[in-house]
Amino acid sequence: MEQWLRDDERLDYLLAEELRIIQSPSVFSFSLDAVLLSRFTYVPISRGKIVDLCTGNGAIPLFLSARTKGEIIGIELQERLADMAKRSVQYNKLDSQVMIKQGDVKGIAAQIGFEKYDVVTCNPPYFPAHEASDKNLKEHLAIARHEIHLTLEEAVRSASELLKQGGKAAFVHRPGRLLDIVTAMRANRLEPKRIRFVYPKEGNEANTLLIEGIKDGKPDLKILPPLYVYGESGEYTEEVKELLYGKE
Amino acid sequence: MEQWLRDDERLDYLLAEELRIIQSPSVFSFSLDAVLLSRFTYVPISRGKIVDLCTGNGAIPLFLSARTKGEIIGIELQERLADMAKRSVQYNKLDSQVMIKQGDVKGIAAQIGFEKYDVVTCNPPYFPAHEASDKNLKEHLAIARHEIHLTLEEAVRSASELLKQGGKAAFVHRPGRLLDIVTAMRANRLEPKRIRFVYPKEGNEANTLLIEGIKDGKPDLKILPPLYVYGESGEYTEEVKELLYGKE
Repeated sequence: MEQWLRDDERLDYLLAEELRIIQSPSVFSFSLDAVLLSRFTYVPISRGKIVDLCTGNGAIPLFLSARTKGEIIGIELQERLADMAKRSVQYNKLDSQVMIKQGDVKGIAAQIGFEKYDVVTCNPPYFPAHEASDKNLKEHLAIARHEIHLTLEEAVRSASELLKQGGKAAFVHRPGRLLDIVTAMRANRLEPKRIRFVYPKEGNEANTLLIEGIKDGKPDLKILPPLYVYGESGEYTEEVKELLYGKE
Repeated sequence: MEQWLRDDERLDYLLAEELRIIQSPSVFSFSLDAVLLSRFTYVPISRGKIVDLCTGNGAIPLFLSARTKGEIIGIELQERLADMAKRSVQYNKLDSQVMIKQGDVKGIAAQIGFEKYDVVTCNPPYFPAHEASDKNLKEHLAIARHEIHLTLEEAVRSASELLKQGGKAAFVHRPGRLLDIVTAMRANRLEPKRIRFVYPKEGNEANTLLIEGIKDGKPDLKILPPLYVYGESGEYTEEVKELLYGKE
């Protein structure tokens, strides 16, 4: 096992899938949002090309590998995280399907190809850059969570540049940024088609937004049923349990 | 009773309120959406000036009169509907609080005053004008439901013109127009602050959108808990029963 791990890294189970993922509490661990986005996004079943932007330790490419036979590329700016993701891909013997590339999401299409992809997913940094300095975050986490090296608008533009006409982009973000994300999507030829709001539990305001758009699609937005994360008792709801652990 | 009613008009109970409203199946009857908007919108309790645009037979001003002591003006383009609304106001002896004015919502601020109002509500025509011709609708219903004489953008602009800085505008519409309404609101200095989606029942897509914005407000959008109209058994949910009929 040691050959795979560095420092305080652990090899965690990837929940519903027969996969493992390298994580580290001090560097990066994937969140429920990555799981939700992996389940929300459309993927072609048997072929096609998928890019996951801001891939972190590669959770979304690993999850998607269980839903599609298509090729998946994960893009991550931070070398330390990209390295974790690469080792997880190797550990799971997914080298022939999943490629992790260290690089900047801004302008990535110039490196991996314009308008060549069927699906782009992205769980971008959520918080304004100026909030990062207050929080005394470790650098890896600060970059992953705050718009220090990548703004929302830049993430959306890169997604659009990668997609074929008719290709689909799916994002997860905070509901407070709904107007910014739909504005950025329309400005970049991604027509919003499906939105799902995620509520921590019944009676609360939404705290997460899942949105999918189609490149050059026609306006026709659907608001899907809400998703509740926790039930009355503070346990995951049946729907979230199924997303995380699969059907019993 | 006859002195109040014309043709096939009826004097209906206004549900939770101790009020009656004149309706006609062939001309106009208020919808659940008017009830939802009346309950969703902020209103000042003891004073203030409120305008309801596209007031139809005056359901929203009547509902609001039970929630506020402020002055309420209802604007309705169609004489026949404005006349029904005026007679309902008289019947309920609300003449000192509620005024119904027949007139075009476009440019209404030039008649009743720019930036003088605290709250504007609007349940505008939902459907594109071009769909009206297909449907062989009676003219009164066609005008009330289709963007024949008033587009969504025009309704939003009039609301903004009427409002003071810090005043609130609340609209009800279809979720498919979410992007259009938020774009029109921001273009007219109305910053969206609260959205509530209404679902016919659990598991369905949303079919109604309630949205409130503040004139010159700061960006900070909340997505409120979903509202379900019908339960498993096809009956109204407890929450909707309470909106309609009051607490038991």
